[in-house]
This record gives sequence, structure tokens and C-alpha cells, in this order.
Amino acid sequence: MSSMRMKTSRIETLVDGIFAISMTLLVLTLDIPNIPSSLSETAFQRQLGVLWPQLLCYFLSFWILGGLWRVNHQQFNFIKRTNPTLITINIFCLILIAMIPFSTEMVSTYGISYFTANIIFQANQLLAGILYYVNWEYALWNGLAEVDGRTSRFIKDSSLVLPICSIIAMGLSFYMYAWSNLIYLTIPAFKKVLERKYFPKAT
Amino acid sequence: MSSMRMKTSRIETLVDGIFAISMTLLVLTLDIPNIPSSLSETAFQRQLGVLWPQLLCYFLSFWILGGLWRVNHQQFNFIKRTNPTLITINIFCLILIAMIPFSTEMVSTYGISYFTANIIFQANQLLAGILYYVNWEYALWNGLAEVDGRTSRFIKDSSLVLPICSIIAMGLSFYMYAWSNLIYLTIPAFKKVLERKYFPKAT
Amino acid sequence: MSSMRMKTSRIETLVDGIFAISMTLLVLTLDIPNIPSSLSETAFQRQLGVLWPQLLCYFLSFWILGGLWRVNHQQFNFIKRTNPTLITINIFCLILIAMIPFSTEMVSTYGISYFTANIIFQANQLLAGILYYVNWEYALWNGLAEVDGRTSRFIKDSSLVLPICSIIAMGLSFYMYAWSNLIYLTIPAFKKVLERKYFPKAT
Amino acid sequence: MSSMRMKTSRIETLVDGIFAISMTLLVLTLDIPNIPSSLSETAFQRQLGVLWPQLLCYFLSFWILGGLWRVNHQQFNFIKRTNPTLITINIFCLILIAMIPFSTEMVSTYGISYFTANIIFQANQLLAGILYYVNWEYALWNGLAEVDGRTSRFIKDSSLVLPICSIIAMGLSFYMYAWSNLIYLTIPAFKKVLERKYFPKAT
Repeated sequence: MSSMRMKTSRIETLVDGIFAISMTLLVLTLDIPNIPSSLSETAFQRQLGVLWPQLLCYFLSFWILGGLWRVNHQQFNFIKRTNPTLITINIFCLILIAMIPFSTEMVSTYGISYFTANIIFQANQLLAGILYYVNWEYALWNGLAEVDGRTSRFIKDSSLVLPICSIIAMGLSFYMYAWSNLIYLTIPAFKKVLERKYFPKAT
Repeated sequence: MSSMRMKTSRIETLVDGIFAISMTLLVLTLDIPNIPSSLSETAFQRQLGVLWPQLLCYFLSFWILGGLWRVNHQQFNFIKRTNPTLITINIFCLILIAMIPFSTEMVSTYGISYFTANIIFQANQLLAGILYYVNWEYALWNGLAEVDGRTSRFIKDSSLVLPICSIIAMGLSFYMYAWSNLIYLTIPAFKKVLERKYFPKAT
Repeated sequence: MSSMRMKTSRIETLVDGIFAISMTLLVLTLDIPNIPSSLSETAFQRQLGVLWPQLLCYFLSFWILGGLWRVNHQQFNFIKRTNPTLITINIFCLILIAMIPFSTEMVSTYGISYFTANIIFQANQLLAGILYYVNWEYALWNGLAEVDGRTSRFIKDSSLVLPICSIIAMGLSFYMYAWSNLIYLTIPAFKKVLERKYFPKAT
Repeated sequence: MSSMRMKTSRIETLVDGIFAISMTLLVLTLDIPNIPSSLSETAFQRQLGVLWPQLLCYFLSFWILGGLWRVNHQQFNFIKRTNPTLITINIFCLILIAMIPFSTEMVSTYGISYFTANIIFQANQLLAGILYYVNWEYALWNGLAEVDGRTSRFIKDSSLVLPICSIIAMGLSFYMYAWSNLIYLTIPAFKKVLERKYFPKAT
């Protein structure tokens, strides 16, 4: 249907823009504390100590967003056509991506005190991850992607790493509160394992 | 006039950028409430309850912006040339698009108490929608678009869905306040009907 | 010098990005006033009255930024090569473009009470306008642009409209405070005159 | 490994986006002071005096970001292929780039009173600079760049200018607090010297 044709280049521009802005807006979760100007340097440094959890969450969310962006690009490397439903799926993905600065601030403010705050953060990652999995499945089933079987399965498994980590993190957050989020740091190792499995001679 | 030539690719980049940023700035309408750190989890969850109207408005505005972005892209799929007036129309569109995070915050803060807040939000959507309709009409009348008659009428009708929904919502908001905005969720159904009407064999 | 070669496409991407973000950040100058939820609708509307000067400034700044973006694009339509100095000039332009949300907030907060606030806003526009004039002159003198004489003079004159309006506005702001900024609304008329002068048969 | 192929154009879009947004978010470090509307113009101007250190930091950070963006573009002018590790290095670069609005606000708020605030700002620049050096070395060692020896050494030396300036600034900040940051203004001179050394006949 001619009026519905949409080059993938366009949705990619929107996606890249929203990823770039979400990543950069994460900086707004770093609050400069209000410190009087008459302290000693060591007292000042002690006051800045409140920044550590914020910095860790900033780093973690940026890293997760970077991972999602890679998954998106791996997929669109092979997705050659779009249709209205694929665009809809991607707009839902973007709704969740753009929320990550919010859920990051949630976890960096309340993640130490309340597991609910961590669950919100992890549910955000989980849903975004699942939608990218759905995106790939939908593209494959509707013949929008041109890809060989092995790569297709590799991308499918890669897309599942974030959702699985999020489910584990949600389970852990009942016991470990904010520490449960450290599980996200294992994502690159998981991906490396998948790479080795599917493309043993490369790397 | 040679100095006035402007590739459509450039206005598209600006448009995509402003859509991406407006969508992502919507996240700033989600305010982390100020909650003491000594409550029980259920008390914390109850306090987070104030986020629901904000989340609904966030979702709704993102969705409407996504719809406007699609209309824009449908149109520029066929608009092959620009002239200064078309650029002016598009800059006016962008002024309204960039205001949506503001009118979203307006409706998510005051939409339950005052119908005026809803009217502001709906008037913003209405004007943006009308301008995109004008954009298409202008492009057609001035021979800037290359398109067959059926697709042209389809895009014209598609462009009218948002303004019509906005007018209905403005009428309802006198009686239903913020609930009137739920009418925007019917947009995809309206578009599906139009698609079926104009391109019966496709889909 | 090979390592210094830079395609114009890259500086254009940065420029478009910064224009898009500056335009969209203008929305942050629109503050939702803090209003109790128990007023009548007319009282609520009266309270929203404080938004008018902010909305006017928002509109004006967006419009001026749109005009500067057009000048930039007219110029880069013909600038085919860059060199480090041209990039430097453009980065200085961007420093001033990115400041416009700040000077807009300045004028929308204090423009009615203090002419200094208006001068800051107008000086920002003046400097940005002058730098784009310098940009064009530099490109011409160093053979970076491929353009015929008439178009070249047209772009030169076009680039001067904003600085001249800014100087007039600065003079008027001593007497008329914020109202002096209305002079910027005459920009399109000035440009139309220039178009008629240089390209009489077109339009 | 086919699924890992990624065009450099994509990482460049993300990089340009994040640079553009970080630069523009710097404007949020400029705070409109809260001034009563009944002062004389000179009293108003005196109150605005608090903006000077903020404006200097804004200018400085924008300038440094502009310099880093140029280094990035010089490098990607010659980097023709990417691999997952190169993308990882670049995402780490972006984490640091996106933090610059934060460390700029840190230095513009506390840089006069505490050398620690300056060290944070300078460490941010230092790490970003080092990562771009690592990026280039990595690309060269893994055959991802196509470049002659002289240009390669020129870019390597260029990439070292910012880290070296940052180390000097960190040393000076113990004695000169915020003034130590003025050393960053010497970057263009350093780069000019390098240009003369490597490409004597050009310029």
C-alpha cells in the first residue's frame, strides 16, 4: 500500500534521536548538592558523597541504554522494510526508552530504601527489552527482515539477555534492594557467551 | 529562485529532531514525589499513586506525537520540493509540537480540577493537527507533492483525524474534564477504517 | 591538508541538532503557575494570565531561531567545503544559539521591568546574526562557497536583517522595554522585500 | 561476523546527537537570579553580576566540547569499520561527554570556593580526552582506520592536547581554584602548533 511505505531510515533517525536525548537527560538525575561555601575541602568532599549512588545509577542506565541501542541497530541492520504495525511497536519501545531517565531518578532516590523503586526501574527495562524481542519476532514473521537463520537466532537470544537480567534483578530486589541492579553489569559477559556460541571462529 | 531552493531532507532533519526532543522532554512531566525514607513499602506505593494521572498523560501525549510524526512522514514521503511558505508552515507546526510537553504538564497538573486545562491541551493538538492539514493542502495546490489522487485523499483524511478528535474532546471536557482526553485513544481505529476504505485489498 | 578535511554534512548535523534542541528547550521557559485546585474556572483562567508574556517570548524566540536556521541553510546550500576556521566560526554561532533559551527566559521574566533584560536578549540575537554574516563573508573570501554574484549578495543582505532589527530593538528598549521586541515580527516583510529586489520575476 | 557489522554512520549519528544535546543542556547551568521587580536598572545589573562565573564556565565547556567533537570527527574521517569493542569505547566516551553539563554546573557553583569542584570538572575532561586517545589507538591497532602515517600521528598528538591541559589544570587548581580552568583556552594554540609541525606547507 503505497501511502503506508516508510523507509526504515526515518524511524531510525527518530530512534537514534530519542536514545541520544534519553542518555543525555540522565545527567539531570545528578543533583548538585547545596553546600555552604565556608567548609574545609574534606568536609566538602564528604558532602559530595551523596552523589555516589546517583553516579552509579547514571552509569548503569547509560550502559543499559547503550545495550538497547545496540540491539536496535543489530535488528535494523537486517530489517529492510517497515509496516504500520512495526512502527507502532517501535513507538511503544520509544515510550519506554524515554521513561528511563524517570525510572533512573526513581531508583537513585529511593532504591536504597524501598524495593518498589527498584521494581519500577527493572520493570521499565524488562518491558523495553521484551518489546525489542517482539519487534524482531514480528519483523521475521512478516518477512520484513533479510537475514540468515544463525544470525536471526543470535539476535533473538541477544534480545533476551536484558529481559532475563531484569527478571533476575526483580527477584533479587526483595532481598538486596538497589544492589540487585548490579546484575545488569553481567550483560556484556552474557553477550560474549552468545557470540562465542553462534560465531565460534570470529572474534 | 535558486537561493530559495531547500532540499526536503533538511526540514525533515529539523522536524525529526524536534519530535524526538519533545517526546523525550515529556519525561520531565513525571515528577518523583518527595517521600520520607522511613515508610513501609505499601505506604510508599500509596504515595506513588499520584503518578498515575501523570503517567497516563505522558503515554497519551507520546502517542499523539507519534501519530503526528507519522502524518508528517506520510506527507513528506510525497512532498519532493519545498518553498519558503512551506517552510514557514512547518516552523509554525514545530512551534506547536514543541509546546506539547508544556500543555501535557498543564493537563496532568490541573486536568482533573479545571476544564480550561484540558481545553489548552486539546487546542494545542487541534492547531497542530490543522496546520498539518494545511501543510498537505498547500503542498498539493502548489505542485510540491508527487502523489496519485487516492493516496492524496487518504492522507488528507488521515490528517483530519487528530483535529476532529480534538474538537470532540474539547466538547466533552466541559462534562468529563480530563477523561475527555481518552477519545485520543480511538485514533488508531479511525486510521484503520480509513486505510480499509482507501486501500481495501491491502493490509 | 588532508586531516583537516571535514565534510559540511557533519557540521550541518551538529547545527541542526543544536537548533532543534534550543527551539525545544524554549518550552522550559513556560512555567506552569502554582494554582490551588479549588478555584472557579474564571479565577483559574485569570491566574493563567501570567503566561501571556511567556508565550509571546516563546513564540518570538522560536520564530527568530527559525529565521536563523533558514539563513544557516541558505548559506550551507552553497558552502561546499569547510576549513578549521569556518568550523570555529560555526561553533561560536552555536554557543550563541544555545544561549537563546536563557536570554528568552531573561526577557520573559524581567523584560517588562528592566530594559537591561531586553538588551541582553537583543544582544544575543545581534551577536548570533553578526556571526552568521561573518560566516558567509568568510566562506566567500576563502572560496568555500560556489555561488553566483546575485545570490551571494542576496544572502549577505538577508543575513543582515536580524542584526539590524536587533540594533533598532536595542535602541527602542530604552523607551518601550519588552515591547521593543515586536520589531522582530517585521523580519519576514524585510526578507520579502529583499527577495523581490534580487529575484523580481520569481515568487 | 555478519551480525556484528555496524556502519560507522550510525555511531556517528548517536555521537553527534549526544554532543549537540550536551552542548545545549549547558544552558541549564545558567540560572536566572531571583530579583525583585522594583530595583533601579543599575541595581538590577549588579544583581546579574552573579552570572559572570556561570557564563565563563558555559563558554569554556562549550568550547571544550566543540574541541572534543572535532577530535571525534577527525578520527571518524578515517575510521571506516567498527567492531563491538570500538562501540563500547565510544559509549564510554559518551557517558563522559553527557556528564559535562553536570561537572560544569559543579565548577560554576563551587569552583571558586573548593578546588575539589575544579578537580571533578578537570577529571571529567581528562577521562574523556584519554578515551578518545584510546579510541584512535584501538582503531589503528585493529586496522579499522585507513590513514597515512603522518596524519595518524597528527591525530594522536591532537588527541593528547586535552588530557595534557587537564593534568596541568588539575595541578594548578590547588593554587588557583577556578582560574586554573583558563588553561583550556590555550588548546587552539597547541593545535595550531601541531598543525604547523605536521603539515608545514598548508594553512
